[in-house]
Amino acid sequence: MGSEKKGKYWVGFDLGGTKMMAIIMNEDFKILSRIRKKTKGYEGVKLGLDRMMETIKEALVEAKVIIKEIRGVGVGCPGPLDLDKGILIETPNLKWKNVELKSILKKEFDSDVAILNDADAGVYGEYRFGAGKNQRCVIGAFCGTGIGGGCVYEGKIIRGKNSSCMEIGHLPVVPMGPLCGCGKKGCVEAIASRLSIAAAASKAAFRGEAPKLLELAGTDIERIKSTTLYEAIRGGDKAVEKIVKDAAYQTGIALAGAVNLLAPDVIVLGGGLVEAMPDIFVENVKAAINYQAMSSLAANVKVTSAKLGDDAVAMGAAAWIEQL
Amino acid sequence: MGSEKKGKYWVGFDLGGTKMMAIIMNEDFKILSRIRKKTKGYEGVKLGLDRMMETIKEALVEAKVIIKEIRGVGVGCPGPLDLDKGILIETPNLKWKNVELKSILKKEFDSDVAILNDADAGVYGEYRFGAGKNQRCVIGAFCGTGIGGGCVYEGKIIRGKNSSCMEIGHLPVVPMGPLCGCGKKGCVEAIASRLSIAAAASKAAFRGEAPKLLELAGTDIERIKSTTLYEAIRGGDKAVEKIVKDAAYQTGIALAGAVNLLAPDVIVLGGGLVEAMPDIFVENVKAAINYQAMSSLAANVKVTSAKLGDDAVAMGAAAWIEQL
Repeated sequence: MGSEKKGKYWVGFDLGGTKMMAIIMNEDFKILSRIRKKTKGYEGVKLGLDRMMETIKEALVEAKVIIKEIRGVGVGCPGPLDLDKGILIETPNLKWKNVELKSILKKEFDSDVAILNDADAGVYGEYRFGAGKNQRCVIGAFCGTGIGGGCVYEGKIIRGKNSSCMEIGHLPVVPMGPLCGCGKKGCVEAIASRLSIAAAASKAAFRGEAPKLLELAGTDIERIKSTTLYEAIRGGDKAVEKIVKDAAYQTGIALAGAVNLLAPDVIVLGGGLVEAMPDIFVENVKAAINYQAMSSLAANVKVTSAKLGDDAVAMGAAAWIEQL
Repeated sequence: MGSEKKGKYWVGFDLGGTKMMAIIMNEDFKILSRIRKKTKGYEGVKLGLDRMMETIKEALVEAKVIIKEIRGVGVGCPGPLDLDKGILIETPNLKWKNVELKSILKKEFDSDVAILNDADAGVYGEYRFGAGKNQRCVIGAFCGTGIGGGCVYEGKIIRGKNSSCMEIGHLPVVPMGPLCGCGKKGCVEAIASRLSIAAAASKAAFRGEAPKLLELAGTDIERIKSTTLYEAIRGGDKAVEKIVKDAAYQTGIALAGAVNLLAPDVIVLGGGLVEAMPDIFVENVKAAINYQAMSSLAANVKVTSAKLGDDAVAMGAAAWIEQL
């Protein structure tokens, strides 16, 4: 890709289901500007792409960087993707299909472009700049509406033939367990994602066992955000606390499998649930790994919360280009 | 390691708990000779090392190769190992402790030496010469007395900081399941290893539900080998058949987790159980992966039995040196 190198500024982009963000970074990956917009996937692909371009261009203006000075554009987005061609095959939350994002961005900004799975970008960001900095093997688990995962092994993102992998959310933890969105049974995401926790907590609220949650959000799982769960726990809802702790522990049981396979040095926990309740997650994931993973491997893994917050995906996606 | 290169012949060594084998290969990894001996770990380290040297030297004589012509010596052995220093930290079956095998062999043969975990060596052998030849991502599961695993990803063996990893036998499949030799509960090895199958089958024999097995081996699990199990199945023991099929299926459930994490192109099944009953294992592992792994990843993985048999470990260990 060397022939296309020219500028020294990086564009990082986080294309989420509900919001998007562009950041501009200098050659040392210091952030010069951040612009956020709502994604509004329901408006369709064309308007969505226009919003992306607008967001990037506003961020460039704020950073006082012109297009000619761009070294590369990295985008983290929900899968499934065609990694090599940089195509968004399908993004359920956006209703986009077969969008050739890489070639569109290459044309627009005349620079190197990388399209990554968002969890991969996030863990790569944490590997380069955050909680897993320069470690040999870093596994990231992002616990939010779903549970995403990624692994940076000796500086490279572990990937499938032409897709991302490290589907930590779909590690089986309970034989014949609850049905998962992926169609299989007993995946940890079907027990421990924010949606699954919210569903369990809403039942507790309905039964009258979570009065604070009932007061805050009723029994509508759409209203039960990670912060709502934390507020309910702080407000004294023991039933919600038990559900959240169990979910964190089950996440750790799934991660114990990943520890036994990959012997990571660091596990970085991120996502909305972890940001709202880092201590509950780190503590229970650690406990579950100690319970379930091989002792020698469990002893060598550090479990920690992510450091970069919302910037991880955009920073990681941009930084990934540098090593391509 | 370039300075030490001289000869063109490879020595591969498989150091097992009960037997050892040396093979000599030419520059194209064509096998010129094979010598096997019993390991006799109970005789202690010194006599054991003497037997190793003897075995290698006899193989050299048979292949008409002299020590000066050796390009490298690769040894696959049971763990845990210090991979970088080439030390056998502890080998439960041999009762050897802290044996500096790499430096001993380097001195003896004045050539490059690699000490590998046996499962890693086996899967690397299958990757280079066997059922996973030149595939991007190959996972090997060796189902015998225990269940060992390894992964070759983009030409390299996935490893821990200074140890092997890919402990497929210790992937949890049943919460609060049977106690495993590793001290944890519900590992697939505690259900599906040859020892675990033999224990379950011996109960069936004791209860009078496996008359053929009772006739062949009684209820002593030491006498219930993989071939005995197969013979009992062929002799009409439905209870044994059910136990073996379930074990193969549970192995597949564990592997489904590995599929979700690593999106392998090929899963190679080897070891005594698979050699005795390849069809039962391949079929049930496939079925379990289709049941439990994400559909898109399950669809892309080929499950097959190993091709190299007893040669895999020794061949893989020797070939590994070439790419160091």
